[in-house]
Amino acid sequence: MELDFSKIKVIGFDADDTLWVNETYFRETEEEFAKLLDHYETPNKIDQELFRMEMRNLDIYGYGIKGFVLSMIESALELSNQKVSQATIAKILDLGKKMISHPVELIDGVPEVLEQLKDNYRLIVLTKGDLLDQERKLERSGLSAYFHHVEVLSDKKEVNYQHLLEHLEIPIEEFLMIGNSLKSDVLPILNLGGMAVHVPFHTTWAHEEVPVEEQTNDHLTLSRITDIVKYLN
Amino acid sequence: MELDFSKIKVIGFDADDTLWVNETYFRETEEEFAKLLDHYETPNKIDQELFRMEMRNLDIYGYGIKGFVLSMIESALELSNQKVSQATIAKILDLGKKMISHPVELIDGVPEVLEQLKDNYRLIVLTKGDLLDQERKLERSGLSAYFHHVEVLSDKKEVNYQHLLEHLEIPIEEFLMIGNSLKSDVLPILNLGGMAVHVPFHTTWAHEEVPVEEQTNDHLTLSRITDIVKYLN
Repeated sequence: MELDFSKIKVIGFDADDTLWVNETYFRETEEEFAKLLDHYETPNKIDQELFRMEMRNLDIYGYGIKGFVLSMIESALELSNQKVSQATIAKILDLGKKMISHPVELIDGVPEVLEQLKDNYRLIVLTKGDLLDQERKLERSGLSAYFHHVEVLSDKKEVNYQHLLEHLEIPIEEFLMIGNSLKSDVLPILNLGGMAVHVPFHTTWAHEEVPVEEQTNDHLTLSRITDIVKYLN
Repeated sequence: MELDFSKIKVIGFDADDTLWVNETYFRETEEEFAKLLDHYETPNKIDQELFRMEMRNLDIYGYGIKGFVLSMIESALELSNQKVSQATIAKILDLGKKMISHPVELIDGVPEVLEQLKDNYRLIVLTKGDLLDQERKLERSGLSAYFHHVEVLSDKKEVNYQHLLEHLEIPIEEFLMIGNSLKSDVLPILNLGGMAVHVPFHTTWAHEEVPVEEQTNDHLTLSRITDIVKYLN
């Protein structure tokens, strides 16, 4: 079977860990969080409990750094039996602010790829998470001018993509999604009958992992985003 | 001078304190917050310091409940010289979750107004704040079906409205904005040359207040949202 990209007119790019580095900063913060609490539990246990707390709070807080910080604070209180020091809580708030203010680090080759594609395709950004945070990162990235549209979604499930494509009047057969998450960028689009390209990032948040049996082969996986131009131009 | 609504085809509704109650819950939470800290400072001082902290953090956290909770925690640490108890921090987290999970309380007459307008106008929601939180409130409100489009903006300044109207291809002369905030719903639209109706809510966040000298008279102010149908139908 050959993948035929000839009908594609619109390309949707995920942002975090597709255009710029993101997950790495969450991992680094998790490590610092574990250090702050190292007299209460092992790093492994702290990691597990924080993830459990994030999952418990996901429906309430949604994706993004602010909810992550609130979950860190709640987790610190729980793991320490409310003995964690006030100074540590203040440090957790600082870790969050540091994440939000972090400079944007583009993934290698991204501006070149966008430059090569911009004249032949309508490029859009489809990301999830915190609205202000994502808008700010796009602005800092210097990539805004490449995109016809930017949409921050509260989640990236089939129904979210479907509504958006309807709203933007994009026929699914003309749409290609590119992203690092099988769960959020690839599978929902394949399920809608569209095409998707997977460009894995070296780090994947556990919540975004997909069991092997749910994975499908009908999509292109690239080791570097720059390889996409071999198929599209 | 008479206001002429005959060209209007699209009506934008603000959501918080226009379609449903919002500010009231922030005020109630601020009161509970002041009670939690009443052995450190007077309620008045606590209120002032929390507002100062929110303003200091606004660029980082943006609008919405999660940033408000983070500012309450930071404020509690600061006001108490890091002596606030861990149990109090846990209670602040709970206050936030209670706000997020609060049932939606519609403002009197809102469904009736939307019902009367829906056949003759395209109705949209234009709100700012947290994406997930606003989507959730709209869903719980039971009002979704009235609206052609819902846009959550990171801010409601002229530039935000301008981009959105361009994106939705709405000529400014066909657009009417209705909302409770002079600063966010009325003045930016008037500055763009559009029409806006102000329906004040009994409580206004200090950040949304507009000095009298910046106010303009070229808009309709209504005491109840239900009165709008006298002008539009």
